[in-house]
Amino acid sequence: SLPFVEFLQRASEDIHEKSFIDKTEKYYLRALGDDPRKDVANVAVQFPNLSSDVHIPKYFDSSKFFSSVFRMASKGVQLWTHYDVMDNILIQVIGRKKVVLFHPNDVDNLYMNGDKSQVLDVDSPDLSRFPKFSQARQYRGYLEPGDILFIPALWFHNMTYEDFGVAVNVFWRHLEENMYDSKDPYGNHDPVPVQRANQIVDRALKALEELPDVYRDFYARRLCDRIRSKACIRDL
Amino acid sequence: SLPFVEFLQRASEDIHEKSFIDKTEKYYLRALGDDPRKDVANVAVQFPNLSSDVHIPKYFDSSKFFSSVFRMASKGVQLWTHYDVMDNILIQVIGRKKVVLFHPNDVDNLYMNGDKSQVLDVDSPDLSRFPKFSQARQYRGYLEPGDILFIPALWFHNMTYEDFGVAVNVFWRHLEENMYDSKDPYGNHDPVPVQRANQIVDRALKALEELPDVYRDFYARRLCDRIRSKACIRDL
Repeated sequence: SLPFVEFLQRASEDIHEKSFIDKTEKYYLRALGDDPRKDVANVAVQFPNLSSDVHIPKYFDSSKFFSSVFRMASKGVQLWTHYDVMDNILIQVIGRKKVVLFHPNDVDNLYMNGDKSQVLDVDSPDLSRFPKFSQARQYRGYLEPGDILFIPALWFHNMTYEDFGVAVNVFWRHLEENMYDSKDPYGNHDPVPVQRANQIVDRALKALEELPDVYRDFYARRLCDRIRSKACIRDL
Repeated sequence: SLPFVEFLQRASEDIHEKSFIDKTEKYYLRALGDDPRKDVANVAVQFPNLSSDVHIPKYFDSSKFFSSVFRMASKGVQLWTHYDVMDNILIQVIGRKKVVLFHPNDVDNLYMNGDKSQVLDVDSPDLSRFPKFSQARQYRGYLEPGDILFIPALWFHNMTYEDFGVAVNVFWRHLEENMYDSKDPYGNHDPVPVQRANQIVDRALKALEELPDVYRDFYARRLCDRIRSKACIRDL
């Protein structure tokens, strides 16, 4: 681990005199709670000196507040396309950031693995591996110091630090409180009914395992049809 | 209802002197069991006079036999694209029949509703409504009197009677006997583990109903991803 001043020095320079691996390595900091396995990040708690500088706009009822996450990174750091389960705002403090957003509808075009897209390079994606990615509509923009971006739950986002950057990310609950996993300091677990649905579906898959491969594959696709026809809004 | 000789007369002619609705109406007969709600169709039982004419090739162990279905139809009758749950052979006795087959893999391109494709006209499909149908590979052929076609379980088939036609369809069980619904005289219910999986999935959908529409839609798609990644062979 690195003292904060040293981190700041390295994250803000392009070429390092001292480094762990190489002179051009990049740094990324995401604040955690005091006990990272239990507590949520909160600027007011972990950075009391900064807290008077952070004015959270009144976009949500304060009882819905979940966390405020201090973030810092070297120029050039790119965060892969992912979604969060909570509504949040990103307050850009220092540096310019490139933002690419995708609507939740485009989930089928993003080749997700967990909450992350497998398409790493959104600027020149490998369309032979990810042909449907070209159908995903990209919303592109830049954040400058002082800008605030509202990122609704489930909207995919891909961020590139065009400069050394500092930002504060504020998350809050939109759903009823009991919909959120109570043991989730990062706030990125799927809602409780979804976790339950996943477990139930695993039992359905267990039932299909009694069948030969060809049948299992076929009826798994038919299960997906069933799910789409009953729960999806925008399908044929 | 119509006496058999009268049916035969009408099904074999193009223009009818007597008819129910109009002079060009078409006829279709699919033999049933003695008690159609309980018994399976069996040529040897319902048509004992014909049974010595029906020689079933030794393609399966006789203990696996399920039914033998006598079929008859007017020229021009077309049966919509569907699949059966059991392996079967189609023995063409009289008349020429056009057959279009699709591999079970193409299920996602056939716009299924239950066991039937919504694409009724496979010769000139409405590709604006059914764009993915163009990706489905068609296997086309003709059956002449004396021809026998093996139709494996889950293979889609679309049949057109190009002449007045008579055929016998023989179904047998490929899976363990307990995989088949015991109350299914037509032999077209999905296998028992699939029925169970459907019921289980309905409970998963019930869990998702606790969420707002946008979340439900989103996570229903993610459930499909989960199913495909765990049970499907041919997906990304």
